[in-house]
Amino acid sequence: MGEIKTAALVGGGVIGAGWGARFLLNGIDVAVYDPDPELQRKFETVLANARRAWAKLFPAAELPREGSLRIASSLADAVKGADFVQESLPEREDLKRRIFAEIDGLLPPHVIIGSSTSGLLPSRLQSDMLHPERLVVGHPFNPVYLLPLVEICGGEKTAAEVKERAGAFYKSIGMQPLHVRKEIDGFIADRMLEAVWREALWMINDGIATTEEIDDAIRYGAGLRWSFMGTFLIYRLAGGEPGMRHFMSQFGPALKLPWTKLVAPELTDELTDTIVRQSDDQARGVSIRELERRRDDCLVAVMSALRDNDFASGATIKDYERSLVDESGVLTLHRATVKPDWIDYNGHMTEHRYLQVFGETTDALFQHIGADAAYLASGLMYYTVETHIRHLHEVTEGEALHATTQILAADDKRIHLFHAIYRSRDDQLLATAEQMQLHVDTNAKKAAPARADVLERVRKLAQAHSALPRPEGSGRSVGVR
Amino acid sequence: MGEIKTAALVGGGVIGAGWGARFLLNGIDVAVYDPDPELQRKFETVLANARRAWAKLFPAAELPREGSLRIASSLADAVKGADFVQESLPEREDLKRRIFAEIDGLLPPHVIIGSSTSGLLPSRLQSDMLHPERLVVGHPFNPVYLLPLVEICGGEKTAAEVKERAGAFYKSIGMQPLHVRKEIDGFIADRMLEAVWREALWMINDGIATTEEIDDAIRYGAGLRWSFMGTFLIYRLAGGEPGMRHFMSQFGPALKLPWTKLVAPELTDELTDTIVRQSDDQARGVSIRELERRRDDCLVAVMSALRDNDFASGATIKDYERSLVDESGVLTLHRATVKPDWIDYNGHMTEHRYLQVFGETTDALFQHIGADAAYLASGLMYYTVETHIRHLHEVTEGEALHATTQILAADDKRIHLFHAIYRSRDDQLLATAEQMQLHVDTNAKKAAPARADVLERVRKLAQAHSALPRPEGSGRSVGVR
Repeated sequence: MGEIKTAALVGGGVIGAGWGARFLLNGIDVAVYDPDPELQRKFETVLANARRAWAKLFPAAELPREGSLRIASSLADAVKGADFVQESLPEREDLKRRIFAEIDGLLPPHVIIGSSTSGLLPSRLQSDMLHPERLVVGHPFNPVYLLPLVEICGGEKTAAEVKERAGAFYKSIGMQPLHVRKEIDGFIADRMLEAVWREALWMINDGIATTEEIDDAIRYGAGLRWSFMGTFLIYRLAGGEPGMRHFMSQFGPALKLPWTKLVAPELTDELTDTIVRQSDDQARGVSIRELERRRDDCLVAVMSALRDNDFASGATIKDYERSLVDESGVLTLHRATVKPDWIDYNGHMTEHRYLQVFGETTDALFQHIGADAAYLASGLMYYTVETHIRHLHEVTEGEALHATTQILAADDKRIHLFHAIYRSRDDQLLATAEQMQLHVDTNAKKAAPARADVLERVRKLAQAHSALPRPEGSGRSVGVR
Repeated sequence: MGEIKTAALVGGGVIGAGWGARFLLNGIDVAVYDPDPELQRKFETVLANARRAWAKLFPAAELPREGSLRIASSLADAVKGADFVQESLPEREDLKRRIFAEIDGLLPPHVIIGSSTSGLLPSRLQSDMLHPERLVVGHPFNPVYLLPLVEICGGEKTAAEVKERAGAFYKSIGMQPLHVRKEIDGFIADRMLEAVWREALWMINDGIATTEEIDDAIRYGAGLRWSFMGTFLIYRLAGGEPGMRHFMSQFGPALKLPWTKLVAPELTDELTDTIVRQSDDQARGVSIRELERRRDDCLVAVMSALRDNDFASGATIKDYERSLVDESGVLTLHRATVKPDWIDYNGHMTEHRYLQVFGETTDALFQHIGADAAYLASGLMYYTVETHIRHLHEVTEGEALHATTQILAADDKRIHLFHAIYRSRDDQLLATAEQMQLHVDTNAKKAAPARADVLERVRKLAQAHSALPRPEGSGRSVGVR
């Protein structure tokens, strides 16, 4: 889709503000409308959480310059000039329908309106609109600035092209779109979440377990698996070598057992009170703010761990990080700060720390081209066979550094590259390193071509960089000139 | 309970072998009975996976010496001399009842029999036993050697003391026992898992989504949260500042919406075929063996990430690792191998690498006493203010090293400690380091007492170590004697 520069948020609660944070961190300007008098404070709190989490999740990436936030005075003020609208109002069909009809009249017809509804049907939500084809569900999960999943579901009148454009947009801001092919209440994810929730409420209602015990039953067991594999793949493995059919024959009969109530209990005042009381006990006085930070820290840690495995949401993040890099010019893939123990007796950064930073820059390049830990574990890796370093300028403790990389040449086994380390404050060039990387099969212990996907990325980079001027100082040998 | 030295496994499929691996890795001898002619091969495969995963999950811990595995020729042969029995047969009540009655007659009455049943009622399972009080459900989750959760549920005749002893035993082998207070079909976890599963089967049956789409709906969204927080705590946060009551009032009405099908679909041949076909597509030809490795790598990565945050299953692992350390004597908390680039031109390990290993040993001590990354993030940490090193013996590339730590003295702000590095092959002492650690408030930038829980662990260690002889070479200063 044409680039989204400005987005309007209708509703700025936990979900709306989560969208806002994700948009802003992607460099999109945001206007938000919500009558809550505390909107600004609450929104800024979510944004602070998101900034904190992103700094941890993307320590090395060059994120876009943050977008600007504007609190709109009305619905019309919010959507004015917007390239995209995301609605996150309470789950009331009448309310959403009324607002969609109103927004519809305020915007040119090509602007997509995404709804965060957890499970209301888009065919009904779009029924009062003049341009119903632009209404699409984009259902996210809290915290929206961290969890990748967004369910995309159109109504009867939603244009196929709108679903595609919405999916591409959400993907561009680091999400994992899941296209829901049949319109159904609760879509896919919330049908399962609701099944768990309804069963859990029955257990509280019947005094089977407390909120904490029910939570523990998930987080110490199946929840750990669900962070990277869903029910079906997990059960395929539970079937052992005979696989899925064996699992179905073994556990199929249990479907007849009274293992679920599935109907939700009546949400009486008494049940609500019990849940609130048990939930308070469970939180042990820890504030929502602090719990949010712990949640975010754990999410960042889990997704970073999965990124190292290039699996599930970890692969999503990796692809996103890769998309942030402008491959047409020299790459900036690594940043560092001069640490106290990097300083020698002269007060300058010690010689070998430059090679350390160059080494980390090479590692960042390998990550970028997909030659990661899993790649190494598969018996393939690049090795540095030659390095030529030039020390050009001193740097002192606490200075921020960034390193750039230019691919000078590449073939199926070699990468000839040129790194440069700069002091970030003033872009002062500090040192350069020209290297030859040789690709090896670590089991056979000899040079071998890189894997096709890695090679493809290397070739694309080398091709793009072949248009760049040769860096000053490349191709030199040591000697008196 | 009296220590468990020998355990009998009745049933050695995916779950039984998973128990076996966990027992063996905890130094427990195992006898297994299962009529499967391929038992040994399948069991060894699970054990190999478990060894691989534990090496990654506990890279520094001194694990017990692995127990011995014996394939029993009969049920009687398996349970002979066992201190504990774990049954993991197919989910058929008649079969389990018959076997329990048989085992019951073969064992002294104090030996606990744990059942891995996913949801059959212990009151029924124990009904043909002479000593029903010793039968308790210990329901684990696959892979048993990695996932901490074990649900403990007694029947009407199960002794309270048996439930306690079983819980203590499972905890001692690194698990997280969850006591199920009311006997109910499916206990707690499987009621929720079954709710998800039944709803998911409906979606396949009705062509709403494929197995892969359903899995994606979990693993890119709620599954990430569920790896460390359960539904109730997560929803408390979704309620934002107004908390749980607000969430209930906001999402309570959705309980009336048709978001779940309520019952399981008929498991027809056609539905089974569809699931098997979609599951095959989803696996993309990757073998069960390879998928198991990916699952285990991800689980290890996720749990290690949570350990760094000292949260949920990460805290369970941390406590387990701590329990492995014998605190009465000198601690062995760190191991390393002399790497090629640690070697100087003489072919020996370079001087400053000793200090590196000592530094890593100090870090391991900090981990052990709970002064971890989260502790540092909270603005508290120990700093090394003084170190005295003695270089006693050379070591060459590839040698395995281990380091010991003795606490010489401690107060609320200081730890006076003595490390020693040994060549593991022959326990040759290579170097010692005596250090003074000062506890600081990193924000106030001054010395401050350690946090109560850390201090408690330090005091316990210092107290235990005060009974040890003063290490040779401690208390020295540099000089000609």
